[in-house]
Amino acid sequence: MGLNKQVSLNLNIRGLAQSATIAINDRSKILQQQGRTVYRLGLGQSPFPVPMPVVDALKLHANEKDYLPAAGLPALREAVAGFHRQKDGVEARPQDVLIGPGSKELMFLLQLVYYGEVIVPTPCWVSYIPQATILGRKVSLIHSRMEDKWRVTAEMLERHCAGEQDDYRPRVLILNYPSNPDGCSYGAAELQDIAQVARQYKVVLLSDEIYGQLHHSGQHISVARYYPEGTIISSGLSKWCGAGGWRLGTFTFSPALDWLLESMTAVASETFTSVSAPIQYAAVSAFRGDIRIERYLWHARRILSVLGNQCAAMMIAAGIRVHPAEGAFYLFPSFAPLAEGLARRGITGSKELCEKLLAETGVAMLSGEVFGRPPQELTARIAYVDFDGAKALSASETIPLDQPLPEDFTELWCFNVIKGIRILIDWVTQQSVP
Amino acid sequence: MGLNKQVSLNLNIRGLAQSATIAINDRSKILQQQGRTVYRLGLGQSPFPVPMPVVDALKLHANEKDYLPAAGLPALREAVAGFHRQKDGVEARPQDVLIGPGSKELMFLLQLVYYGEVIVPTPCWVSYIPQATILGRKVSLIHSRMEDKWRVTAEMLERHCAGEQDDYRPRVLILNYPSNPDGCSYGAAELQDIAQVARQYKVVLLSDEIYGQLHHSGQHISVARYYPEGTIISSGLSKWCGAGGWRLGTFTFSPALDWLLESMTAVASETFTSVSAPIQYAAVSAFRGDIRIERYLWHARRILSVLGNQCAAMMIAAGIRVHPAEGAFYLFPSFAPLAEGLARRGITGSKELCEKLLAETGVAMLSGEVFGRPPQELTARIAYVDFDGAKALSASETIPLDQPLPEDFTELWCFNVIKGIRILIDWVTQQSVP
Repeated sequence: MGLNKQVSLNLNIRGLAQSATIAINDRSKILQQQGRTVYRLGLGQSPFPVPMPVVDALKLHANEKDYLPAAGLPALREAVAGFHRQKDGVEARPQDVLIGPGSKELMFLLQLVYYGEVIVPTPCWVSYIPQATILGRKVSLIHSRMEDKWRVTAEMLERHCAGEQDDYRPRVLILNYPSNPDGCSYGAAELQDIAQVARQYKVVLLSDEIYGQLHHSGQHISVARYYPEGTIISSGLSKWCGAGGWRLGTFTFSPALDWLLESMTAVASETFTSVSAPIQYAAVSAFRGDIRIERYLWHARRILSVLGNQCAAMMIAAGIRVHPAEGAFYLFPSFAPLAEGLARRGITGSKELCEKLLAETGVAMLSGEVFGRPPQELTARIAYVDFDGAKALSASETIPLDQPLPEDFTELWCFNVIKGIRILIDWVTQQSVP
Repeated sequence: MGLNKQVSLNLNIRGLAQSATIAINDRSKILQQQGRTVYRLGLGQSPFPVPMPVVDALKLHANEKDYLPAAGLPALREAVAGFHRQKDGVEARPQDVLIGPGSKELMFLLQLVYYGEVIVPTPCWVSYIPQATILGRKVSLIHSRMEDKWRVTAEMLERHCAGEQDDYRPRVLILNYPSNPDGCSYGAAELQDIAQVARQYKVVLLSDEIYGQLHHSGQHISVARYYPEGTIISSGLSKWCGAGGWRLGTFTFSPALDWLLESMTAVASETFTSVSAPIQYAAVSAFRGDIRIERYLWHARRILSVLGNQCAAMMIAAGIRVHPAEGAFYLFPSFAPLAEGLARRGITGSKELCEKLLAETGVAMLSGEVFGRPPQELTARIAYVDFDGAKALSASETIPLDQPLPEDFTELWCFNVIKGIRILIDWVTQQSVP
């Protein structure tokens, strides 16, 4: 009966669909193929190209064919450690770094090797919870509040840990900032408070800082500065380097967590073996960085900041609640103030909201439910990335970095995003058809 | 206590070391760095470069940055299906193909999603069993015999399945041919018999045919021809295309197993997301193939055949038992005829044999134990790949394919392998020190 689905599928996998972000991308493509205009504010992919020096490095190393060490190319581990020392001011040695085919895969391996509870503040990135489900791990959600800028507070964490009446419980807390899905970040004081609670309960902190270099004012602070002994910093090429499709992620471990690095490396050697060699060689240039990559980053930040602020301001003016983005390229508005009007149109949950919006207007965004929020909460994620990043960068490069972008910049170079937000606002604020 | 190894490591992972093939590589490198001459017959990596048209395709697509669909780039799925149709004469459609970062990762996902027993004939490739251990899956070994050319027979499979008195048990049988570690293959009649038993018990057949295109006489036959409804063909770029470090593997499913493909795709979307985009674009050229790649393959086969036969003949002449290789680049000798002399030197198992050999002579090979064989059996795997494949290919290309290679070819171009085998023979046949 081995060929038979009914008896031979792992119970943890049954009903598992493809990741929601990937699904919205596929659905948008189908609508476009049907001739519909789609405003693609669903998939959170960097709109910018991979910086030229990094692309050139890939071409240069295209003939690298040898299997690399499971933990990563030594020169790349060194470059990543240097990157975190320089950018984040944390201690990091090459032997603390593990390279994987995306940080998502590394998070999966961490959940696989670590025998403990996973604590996930919501709203959270879409894959943390399905990964735990696949592996049959226990997940505890901590719902943060819009009033707290969607941040988990030290008090919430303390209450959660104390409430379990099990001080010896092994736990991993996943922090993600600048955050997908809300674009908000943490300040030093908040991180210090969280670090203190984490230290008290000996919680392993998985700090997903993949958007760190896309903090709009360049002021990202790694929590590893305050909790070095218990933190794993997660990063990669996908966001700040525009290379999502290349698939290269990094974990940088506290030396005290070397046993996790070793176990994950052993599992890596029995699963993905090592990350693609040409990609690793190219990534060395990216993590070492140079003046061209720095300029690229500052232009990208300026564009994302202006565009994010403008989208937020438009929504706020229309009565939608939203926190301006501090980093990354996301906004996480709440349509609660419009709940009454939406309810009259039969919309009482975030999933219906997004599905109707896409069907009626072609604007794609992802429902708050996908990010672990209660289904009835009228929240959604907007990824303001539907523009040609290469063209926008070229335009930005003609304007010195110490000057502001001209007022018409976003209309000129990010028109689809602005238009999508306008359509969204018109649609959510319209009165019900009598 | 979450930072504490003693309480928070998954029991299935504890004690797991890095894959044995990777470990022997690392150990060889350390000895070389100490100034020792090492004959690297341990790691099974293709000695040949990636064919030039494929390297050029990678350069051409170095700026591809988008996330690709989880199941793979459509053009690549089409190319892989075409490859199996053309090379193996099997039905295969693009939608039957799944692309992963190495076939090893895909095998892991299969074991993860499939709720059943894994049947592994030994000697077997090093990672099948550790993968099952990591996932806590039940593995049944079927020990094949040297007399049967290390092949599992239909009778052995029948006896195994019948013996479990559970006709409804979901099972996956892993076949691998041409085989790592023994270089032997199956003929049509053997495959037909195995297919019949598999059909009777509805066993899913994972047919690891990654060395298929390295059958020395080009006569590889896929078992999917005889058991199309239950077979998954595993392949990839690592062996025939010399691109082990690129990390690209493929599974081609029976349409009846679409539910496995779908589940694995869903897990892929939550783990590695998709395979590196530039690598996938480059792989399209490899799987589509052209006359240059065909020539490359025929020259590689000719070199491997001559070298494998010569190594086998040298060992047989020295009283070692070994089957000549039919494909791939492995030999799996048995030193049993020399057991008495070895025992006098304190060597009574395959692990000691390999460790002492490496320490005393610098010849690296892998013990039979690593491939699932009983520890006391004096078997080992020799990967006859310690030569510069690019130079050997160039030399071979000056000699028309319908002519034999000259007698001194291997001495000239594969000298380290020949010398390593000579040293091995001298060492195993030497009389014990009085």
